[in-house]
Amino acid sequence: MLRQELSRSVDHDPDFEWRGTDVTRIENLSDIVFAIAFGMLIMSGDAPRTFEGLNRFLLSLVPVTFAFIMMMQIWNAHFLFFRRYALADRGVVFLNAALLLLVLVIAYPLRFIFDSLYGFILYQFGYEDYVTDLRVNYRRASIIMGYFTAGYALAGLLIAALYAHALRKAEMLGLTDRERQLTRVTIWIVGMGAAWALLSCILALTTPLGAFAGFFMNATAITSPLIRRRMKPKSRAA
Amino acid sequence: MLRQELSRSVDHDPDFEWRGTDVTRIENLSDIVFAIAFGMLIMSGDAPRTFEGLNRFLLSLVPVTFAFIMMMQIWNAHFLFFRRYALADRGVVFLNAALLLLVLVIAYPLRFIFDSLYGFILYQFGYEDYVTDLRVNYRRASIIMGYFTAGYALAGLLIAALYAHALRKAEMLGLTDRERQLTRVTIWIVGMGAAWALLSCILALTTPLGAFAGFFMNATAITSPLIRRRMKPKSRAA
Amino acid sequence: MLRQELSRSVDHDPDFEWRGTDVTRIENLSDIVFAIAFGMLIMSGDAPRTFEGLNRFLLSLVPVTFAFIMMMQIWNAHFLFFRRYALADRGVVFLNAALLLLVLVIAYPLRFIFDSLYGFILYQFGYEDYVTDLRVNYRRASIIMGYFTAGYALAGLLIAALYAHALRKAEMLGLTDRERQLTRVTIWIVGMGAAWALLSCILALTTPLGAFAGFFMNATAITSPLIRRRMKPKSRAA
Amino acid sequence: MLRQELSRSVDHDPDFEWRGTDVTRIENLSDIVFAIAFGMLIMSGDAPRTFEGLNRFLLSLVPVTFAFIMMMQIWNAHFLFFRRYALADRGVVFLNAALLLLVLVIAYPLRFIFDSLYGFILYQFGYEDYVTDLRVNYRRASIIMGYFTAGYALAGLLIAALYAHALRKAEMLGLTDRERQLTRVTIWIVGMGAAWALLSCILALTTPLGAFAGFFMNATAITSPLIRRRMKPKSRAA
Repeated sequence: MLRQELSRSVDHDPDFEWRGTDVTRIENLSDIVFAIAFGMLIMSGDAPRTFEGLNRFLLSLVPVTFAFIMMMQIWNAHFLFFRRYALADRGVVFLNAALLLLVLVIAYPLRFIFDSLYGFILYQFGYEDYVTDLRVNYRRASIIMGYFTAGYALAGLLIAALYAHALRKAEMLGLTDRERQLTRVTIWIVGMGAAWALLSCILALTTPLGAFAGFFMNATAITSPLIRRRMKPKSRAA
Repeated sequence: MLRQELSRSVDHDPDFEWRGTDVTRIENLSDIVFAIAFGMLIMSGDAPRTFEGLNRFLLSLVPVTFAFIMMMQIWNAHFLFFRRYALADRGVVFLNAALLLLVLVIAYPLRFIFDSLYGFILYQFGYEDYVTDLRVNYRRASIIMGYFTAGYALAGLLIAALYAHALRKAEMLGLTDRERQLTRVTIWIVGMGAAWALLSCILALTTPLGAFAGFFMNATAITSPLIRRRMKPKSRAA
Repeated sequence: MLRQELSRSVDHDPDFEWRGTDVTRIENLSDIVFAIAFGMLIMSGDAPRTFEGLNRFLLSLVPVTFAFIMMMQIWNAHFLFFRRYALADRGVVFLNAALLLLVLVIAYPLRFIFDSLYGFILYQFGYEDYVTDLRVNYRRASIIMGYFTAGYALAGLLIAALYAHALRKAEMLGLTDRERQLTRVTIWIVGMGAAWALLSCILALTTPLGAFAGFFMNATAITSPLIRRRMKPKSRAA
Repeated sequence: MLRQELSRSVDHDPDFEWRGTDVTRIENLSDIVFAIAFGMLIMSGDAPRTFEGLNRFLLSLVPVTFAFIMMMQIWNAHFLFFRRYALADRGVVFLNAALLLLVLVIAYPLRFIFDSLYGFILYQFGYEDYVTDLRVNYRRASIIMGYFTAGYALAGLLIAALYAHALRKAEMLGLTDRERQLTRVTIWIVGMGAAWALLSCILALTTPLGAFAGFFMNATAITSPLIRRRMKPKSRAA
């Protein structure tokens, strides 16, 4: 038992007591919805029936992989939230339902967006089929980037709202100072990511920057470490 | 532990002891069926492959959201039932199976119904495509409303039957007086909703009111608070 | 706790101690496969997009319901098995995998079979569309009945094999005499059902009885109560 | 309890203490993804609507069964890993996510590959429809075999990496010497299978052996028992 305890504390989340242990029904429902969304990423289109179809399917795995990674990051944030705080009140049920709807709803567009991007890159190398097929031009690319960044921002806001909800219940959950601080760090990092996505969205739709406005989302690579350093919780020893 | 207990009692369902803790297989199966039904709401139709298709997909999210909310309400009633009473006898398995079948079966019609309504509203604003596509007129709108209210009534009856089943087992489950009264309140509210839906259904199909008979479903906005006030359980202190 | 114990012993399965409590991964995987098969029953065909499509979809719910009931019976036998014996050895994993494959594989044919039957009945009442569409005649009806009874027999054999496996491990599981006898009853009833289905299958494919040979499956209505009476376990008091 | 303990130790995995007991969320998500992949194996193509369609569907069950068996083997390795080590750290989440993506992604190709093989065999017996339909010739068969062996090798590498990860954490998990040795055996067997698959892949794509290079995958039938004998852990008594 002790050993299990030890392994748990070292492995999973060293600075956080895991309040959730068993899989609750909210998590169960969420997992299934996530898995269905994963399936939608891959299944969009029919099963390949010819050799050419098989090759095209395998070629499409590049954008699928990127879409899968993005979706998996949302799952990871969701996973951590329920393990850490084990909340299941009305507010969480509501925010979670909204997140699930978003997850289901963004699967097809996410696939479409990465397909377009991939088609664009293939086009640079002389493969023109993808782009013609999706009928995307510069203006449309901007709108697609707008959708993408809007969806990203929305997902970020919902996740930040979930963590903020947990922070409001900190007293009741008995979070330590360190845990409260870590929760705040997560809210800031996720929220800042949403803010940059929102900026990218506005710039993509309203300025001639177009799809290239998506570049601003990379600003998190600068802001996230900054937030982490500034808000560093006191060491456990203290 | 105590802290967890505390959080549980405050958060989830203050007036009710949660007899169900782990996810049972009946709940597990049900969650998956619900999630598949959610998927059917969104997936109906193919994955978008063109920019126009993507826009049409995003436009359809308005009716999808409403259908999702209705479905989520059924899930919530289901979730509460199993957490509160943790029953798994033959009667519950049977009623639950009927509810699961209903959930799977109403996904496509629910989507269709909200699509029609949405098309009707878009039509008022000059977008005629939706309505033409679904080929709906006044008489047909009445029938669709009839289907919708019938499905709603059936779902309500099944949920009320589940709660009534729990009430019959109150002795065995050791429900307190307060909990019995709360169970009765749920039965009355859900049952009354089903009754109004049934009235709407009959009026929609047999009178010139047609689809507008659906208006009577809003009567629950009056009856539900009335039931709640009249059947208010004695305070916990008493 | 005591109360919970009481409710459990009275409710679920009065004569059997439930050895399985939490949902294991084998059960979890199985539930999802069952739910997907349920979805396949309903989803076969596209989402309705026109009023006529909606009506046809609602009409098809009659055969879907029958297919759903058959599938749910398999789930129930599966559910009881894992709750009662909580076995998860190699033999169970293997038999269970075979059952899961069968469940996935029979979903479409099951739907097809009930669709044919339904079309046949509608045909008697003057609706000819269904039958023409499925292109079924007397000879083909026999073959379809052959498939159906073969699938039914196979499902029965797999379930009987699972229970027989549990009986072989009776010592290790610590089954009481009463529980062993109940296990034997289940094996006999399910096995006899499989035997009648096999007979129906052979008669349907080789004799002029054709699809009407399916009638012999009803013989379980006579043999099952007989088995139950003959093999009645001694009363608990004894 | 003792009895349950006994049954557990005898049944499941005699030489290994099961550190994982409840289904964790990572396992839950994985199960759903596996089940969806199973569904993709069977569903590829539409539901049969005619008698001919039903027959063709039933004929396709032969390749589906083989694909199902391969997929089930991956599930089994996954199942054992989480039961045995109950790890859920970053490394496991990452490797598991990669495996899940692979599982979803290989479903269609797996089906295609077994369909081709089956078509090839049917072709030998005079049924030419399958092969013509899939448009496969000798060169293409080599490439398909290349895809298959590459996917197999990748799955093997990911599973071996998971077990190697567990071995690195052996101290923390408190694995006995015997358990460490058994873990090493698994890594060697799975890794050697991946190596033979890789060799087959290279030979299939670069030499005139073509699809027949797949034959080298059977070398595991020789190497696996060898590894098992050489690395035999000391008996429990010792």
